[in-house]
Amino acid sequence: MPQPTTSANPTLSWIGALPGHLSLLDQTRLPLVETRLAVRDVETLRDAICRLAVRGAPALGVVAGYGVVLGIQAAADESARAVLERARSAAARIASARPTAVNLGWGAQRVLARLERDVARGADGRALVTAAYDEACAIHAEDVAACRHMGELGAEFIAGGASILTHCNAGALATSGIGSALAPVYCAHERGKRVRVYADETRPLLQGARLTAWELARAGIDVTLITDGMAARVMAEKRIDAVFVGADRITANGDVCNKIGTYGVALAAHAHGIPFYVVAPSSTFDLALADGTRIPIEERDASEITDAFGVRTAPPGIRVYNPAFDVTPARYVTAIVCERGVIRAPDTERVAAVLAS
Amino acid sequence: MPQPTTSANPTLSWIGALPGHLSLLDQTRLPLVETRLAVRDVETLRDAICRLAVRGAPALGVVAGYGVVLGIQAAADESARAVLERARSAAARIASARPTAVNLGWGAQRVLARLERDVARGADGRALVTAAYDEACAIHAEDVAACRHMGELGAEFIAGGASILTHCNAGALATSGIGSALAPVYCAHERGKRVRVYADETRPLLQGARLTAWELARAGIDVTLITDGMAARVMAEKRIDAVFVGADRITANGDVCNKIGTYGVALAAHAHGIPFYVVAPSSTFDLALADGTRIPIEERDASEITDAFGVRTAPPGIRVYNPAFDVTPARYVTAIVCERGVIRAPDTERVAAVLAS
Repeated sequence: MPQPTTSANPTLSWIGALPGHLSLLDQTRLPLVETRLAVRDVETLRDAICRLAVRGAPALGVVAGYGVVLGIQAAADESARAVLERARSAAARIASARPTAVNLGWGAQRVLARLERDVARGADGRALVTAAYDEACAIHAEDVAACRHMGELGAEFIAGGASILTHCNAGALATSGIGSALAPVYCAHERGKRVRVYADETRPLLQGARLTAWELARAGIDVTLITDGMAARVMAEKRIDAVFVGADRITANGDVCNKIGTYGVALAAHAHGIPFYVVAPSSTFDLALADGTRIPIEERDASEITDAFGVRTAPPGIRVYNPAFDVTPARYVTAIVCERGVIRAPDTERVAAVLAS
Repeated sequence: MPQPTTSANPTLSWIGALPGHLSLLDQTRLPLVETRLAVRDVETLRDAICRLAVRGAPALGVVAGYGVVLGIQAAADESARAVLERARSAAARIASARPTAVNLGWGAQRVLARLERDVARGADGRALVTAAYDEACAIHAEDVAACRHMGELGAEFIAGGASILTHCNAGALATSGIGSALAPVYCAHERGKRVRVYADETRPLLQGARLTAWELARAGIDVTLITDGMAARVMAEKRIDAVFVGADRITANGDVCNKIGTYGVALAAHAHGIPFYVVAPSSTFDLALADGTRIPIEERDASEITDAFGVRTAPPGIRVYNPAFDVTPARYVTAIVCERGVIRAPDTERVAAVLAS
């Protein structure tokens, strides 16, 4: 029986081997309340994903894998076909919870593919449940390792005394390891480099204020909170040496889909000659899409904008447009840091070369 | 005795000739509560300005003028020298309430200059009070007229069916007339053109959500609220034909200081080839400053970012940077629309030429 991956990261853990459950830090309650959710079935997980109690593309890949386990673990005594059917249904529910992050479908699909192979090899229901758990744990362990590796690769781009701007949260809370965009910051900090971070608050849901500021302050890293509209100004004031962000989906040509507001940060960085790094594991790439115009962009509820945290701040009945993501064309990306290597000046050829390595 | 200027604009009005008082719409309570403040002395006015109960560069110019009247109207029986001393003291208190908008000092100084001229001509205390009121009413009437004229000039840049993006509130609520940035929208609407507006919510104080969305919806204009980080995305989606913003100070070379976030919008507009118009009355220009690097930028309290409208959303003790304004270099400005004319591709020479006209 594989062992659950453990790390200092509070984002997610699997409790109790088989049968077990997912324990999630409820990120909707941060930064003021630290409380955990025990997730024992697929619909509860789907709800947690929709509510953003767990979020961040890499973390979503990990919970998607465990989600398939949740969907089948009580059915070990059923036939292999029946278990596979349950797994497919669980995977479909999970993958459809949010449309933009490719990792959700990727994690669920990876476990499903393993089960299909094992069914073909004659595995029974019980063996499939164990295999699903095995694969989910592997995804989890690989995510922890990928974060570390991306951190080491990305830290090369951070000089001592550097000041980094980040948008949204692509930190430990968005992964099961030390983060994607923030992994280089943590690694540079570990190496004794002095690093300062400016965190965009990231409206509408304030992941920068609530999550990035929380986890960096907790780790003893110098962090300054700004509103999203201040990013260009702090660049003009020469306060920023580099931008590091994560990604929710990267297309074959290197276009980067990430939290709404990222594209504006990229344009401002470009105008100021500031390098713009995207840090994301290989599971974030969607090579089936040629470029970013093909990515479905999730639109979320108007109330996220009109009723910020329970306080109504817009006139009743006002029309709202609330896309959750935007797309930064590859030409504005200095490099993509992935656990397989660094893709400088990304294009279709260079993306393919590093992903194949 | 001059008559108070009246208009449909609820932002500010002078009540009761002499002695009288300023009536201000308390903009901190919008969009949910419409309540007015009766302002009878300089310190109450200063407090209203600091709290942003009244804001917007042109409106600040008008209330600064009336503020000098508030400071001297009870002293009509004193000597001319004593009244002038009171006026100077009132003007200094008002001008120092906020450091960035040049109009505050401009409005107070204009009334003061009138009093100094009248003292030199032998006016007594009572005549000075009347003269101050006369000058304040003139500033008020000129602001109403300037808004209308800027609206007519700016409407030429709005085609029927056009979609406009604006940042912060440079509407009727920021002036005593039909606004600066929004004046062209109102004029185009009056001319029967279909106009759609995307309003950046404008963190931290949400003037876009609370004020721009409120006044446009009230006027029957199609308005869609977005977060500041969405501006670049809606441009990429080809939803925007032009950007219209106001200004808090414009330097001799055409650099534009305006609400924080404006500069990022300008960079995004530039990247998408979208025209970027600044609409501001001539009182906004500060020809004593060669360029925008010389403008003092007000930093406001951290709580505006960490405690959005009473809800704590950032970790306790987090460091915050909260500049209230930024500077958009003239090279990103397609044209400045001023009541004296349109300054295309502004530079020192073109600014001087239009302002002298």
